Amino acid sequence: MSRVRQILDMNAFDASAGGGGAVKRRLDNLGAASVLFYREPIEMVAARGAWMEARDGTRYLDFYNNVPSVGHSHPEVVAAISAQVARLNTNTRYLVGIVDDYLEALKDKLPADLANVVMTCSGSEANDLAIRIARAVSGRTGFIVTETAYHGNTALVTEASPSALKRSPLPGHVVTVPAPENAAYGDDIAEGFRAAVVAAMKALEARGHGTAAFLADSIFSSDGIFADPAGFLRPAVQAVQEAGGLFVADEVQPGFGRTGDAFWGYERHGIAPDIVTMGKPMGNGFPMAGMAARPEHLAMFCEDVGYFNTFGGNPVAAAAGLAVLKVIAQEGLQENARRVGAHLKAGLSQVAAGSDRVTQMRGAGLFLGIDLGTKDGSGAEDAGYTVQVIDRMRAAGVLIGAAGRYGATLKVRPPLCLNMAEADRFIEAFEKAVRG
Amino acid sequence: MSRVRQILDMNAFDASAGGGGAVKRRLDNLGAASVLFYREPIEMVAARGAWMEARDGTRYLDFYNNVPSVGHSHPEVVAAISAQVARLNTNTRYLVGIVDDYLEALKDKLPADLANVVMTCSGSEANDLAIRIARAVSGRTGFIVTETAYHGNTALVTEASPSALKRSPLPGHVVTVPAPENAAYGDDIAEGFRAAVVAAMKALEARGHGTAAFLADSIFSSDGIFADPAGFLRPAVQAVQEAGGLFVADEVQPGFGRTGDAFWGYERHGIAPDIVTMGKPMGNGFPMAGMAARPEHLAMFCEDVGYFNTFGGNPVAAAAGLAVLKVIAQEGLQENARRVGAHLKAGLSQVAAGSDRVTQMRGAGLFLGIDLGTKDGSGAEDAGYTVQVIDRMRAAGVLIGAAGRYGATLKVRPPLCLNMAEADRFIEAFEKAVRG
Repeated sequence: MSRVRQILDMNAFDASAGGGGAVKRRLDNLGAASVLFYREPIEMVAARGAWMEARDGTRYLDFYNNVPSVGHSHPEVVAAISAQVARLNTNTRYLVGIVDDYLEALKDKLPADLANVVMTCSGSEANDLAIRIARAVSGRTGFIVTETAYHGNTALVTEASPSALKRSPLPGHVVTVPAPENAAYGDDIAEGFRAAVVAAMKALEARGHGTAAFLADSIFSSDGIFADPAGFLRPAVQAVQEAGGLFVADEVQPGFGRTGDAFWGYERHGIAPDIVTMGKPMGNGFPMAGMAARPEHLAMFCEDVGYFNTFGGNPVAAAAGLAVLKVIAQEGLQENARRVGAHLKAGLSQVAAGSDRVTQMRGAGLFLGIDLGTKDGSGAEDAGYTVQVIDRMRAAGVLIGAAGRYGATLKVRPPLCLNMAEADRFIEAFEKAVRG
Repeated sequence: MSRVRQILDMNAFDASAGGGGAVKRRLDNLGAASVLFYREPIEMVAARGAWMEARDGTRYLDFYNNVPSVGHSHPEVVAAISAQVARLNTNTRYLVGIVDDYLEALKDKLPADLANVVMTCSGSEANDLAIRIARAVSGRTGFIVTETAYHGNTALVTEASPSALKRSPLPGHVVTVPAPENAAYGDDIAEGFRAAVVAAMKALEARGHGTAAFLADSIFSSDGIFADPAGFLRPAVQAVQEAGGLFVADEVQPGFGRTGDAFWGYERHGIAPDIVTMGKPMGNGFPMAGMAARPEHLAMFCEDVGYFNTFGGNPVAAAAGLAVLKVIAQEGLQENARRVGAHLKAGLSQVAAGSDRVTQMRGAGLFLGIDLGTKDGSGAEDAGYTVQVIDRMRAAGVLIGAAGRYGATLKVRPPLCLNMAEADRFIEAFEKAVRG
């Protein structure tokens, strides 16, 4: 069992412990595939903006869920979905104006050379397609990911998601590199990470696979959130591209303004991805995702395999996606992520300075990682304590989760509409939670 | 290029032919992944019940799209989606009452032993998971599908979808059997099909893969629609199960009442599937799908790999799915499929009797297949003529598509809310279309 999986399980509901009627129902229905947060799971009944409401009336400030990125139940997104689903919901075998309106609005945000966008239902489907396109284009089969990466849940993408594997080893065509952290690479992360990726390419070459693609989520979410120094990804990506491999920017986590600095995470690194995949925040919860690629690359793949996605690019998804882009612009959410994120980081830095438990804090915009360590102040990761802090935050009405190789990194990832008062509330709750 | 792919392309928009502004936009956006129906694609603006409306005001009777199964823009489904998306849309890491309400309502329709339902976004994701579960349970890697099967678009499921492959051969762990038609097996389809499946198992055994699963859509949609005699699947399925393989019933096409005889297609055959996958009509267009399995089977898979699907089982999908089940029951749509389907079949049989071009008609409920042959009355398949008939039907305001190994089978698949007058309208249009 991977370490991160073990840790995630620590904070999950323990099926053997019994539980209330609602929990029993869920376990009876989903069985072993059920993943409930908290030892005493929360039954939610409503949500709005940065807040979720439980059946018992408790209101929770949501610092975990990055899908409702422009705010839970955003009225503009709700209205767009409701209007379109009442009018027309069909597939891309017909022309529908709003679908191309959306694709064009999305392409306006993307590099001009990635001019084709294939719409899918999930980030998993987008990454599944991206890997296959990279293989078709490069004529090679191997790929490189970080040690605790997660890119999705299909058979192919699970192979590129070490954090999802409990027992099985990675297949031979996947080579991992340590996440871009000082602990692994010292002070020069850019050069260390480049060297690790070059070594991975050599390993794939030696195994006869070669490197079809290097896949990275540029905020390294499941690895523990590594954002700085901006630009560190560039040498590694260039090395892959110079060797004829593709760089797939998995923007499911950092995309759509979350990092504050840029609309896409890869932009912070000054790199030119060959493929961009996106998902979660794209429709603020409406199931939709996508993959942008060069027309000639997509055409190479389609020569061999037809690709059609029944629900992908349906007009309701397009309406949701258009509303999300509009709200991000209208409400200045990328700028808000930068501004409130900086405020949050500054406040949390003060807490960190006064706590032996907080060993490091990192991140960009409204995606921060806070490492928690043992009481002795040695800086050693403390996954058990992290679970305690998560539970204390929950008791204080704040939702938060863990990530990272050791499961000792708090993943701070509120909706982009977070205001200063809500940020302060989090800082205060966190300060109390790490006192003990 | 597979024959069916070639034929489907015959009726698709030809990119090299140029076209209006809306078509150019679409091709600029989707590139090689664009699949537009008709040489002159239709721009749709609205849809209701069994009808779709184009930008130029033309109203089309929809005999193609099986996703909006209870009728396009059904007010009850629209209301359910609109209400839930305004209230709460989150993931299955929290408890949400409507999610378990839906899972229980769905399980009421399924065999009692398939007590765990994993919700996904697409039928492709459901089949991807089903194949992996079958591999984990059986300890084998091979699977059996029909020659022109289509089960989805992920890397793994594409391997089990011969109709999606244009050039590449099937991998060694996939063996195909001819579709269950008289042309392949003579009069005793049940025995012929069983023998073919047993031979396929032997081939997989000889290749060292063994048979993890036999996957079949029991209406054999992309193969050309083969429904009769009900029960013919039983000996083949039993042979697989007796040999320790799993039977995966892909209900994406026949499920949710379409065959009229039963809620699920496999029920017509008196078989007990090990896994049921479902998708398209499940949310009447809301992107959702699912996979039902035995708890112990799901648990075996989850021992090795964690499975979580961000959008799968969200409360809006649950609301849509509940509304669909409610409408099917309230409006008696399964019975309507049986009754109107029988009327349609009878009417079309009369047309067939008077036409040299109609060589065979098959199907169950509101899923019929009509084979079209050459002018000489020899019974040879005529794919070119089939395209002509599809175009004539379009000119008469009826949407219809082709399927089958030769692309010479009309796929008759209207919404389940079809009324007698609409059925008559189709019969009339078809009668005129096959006159020439």
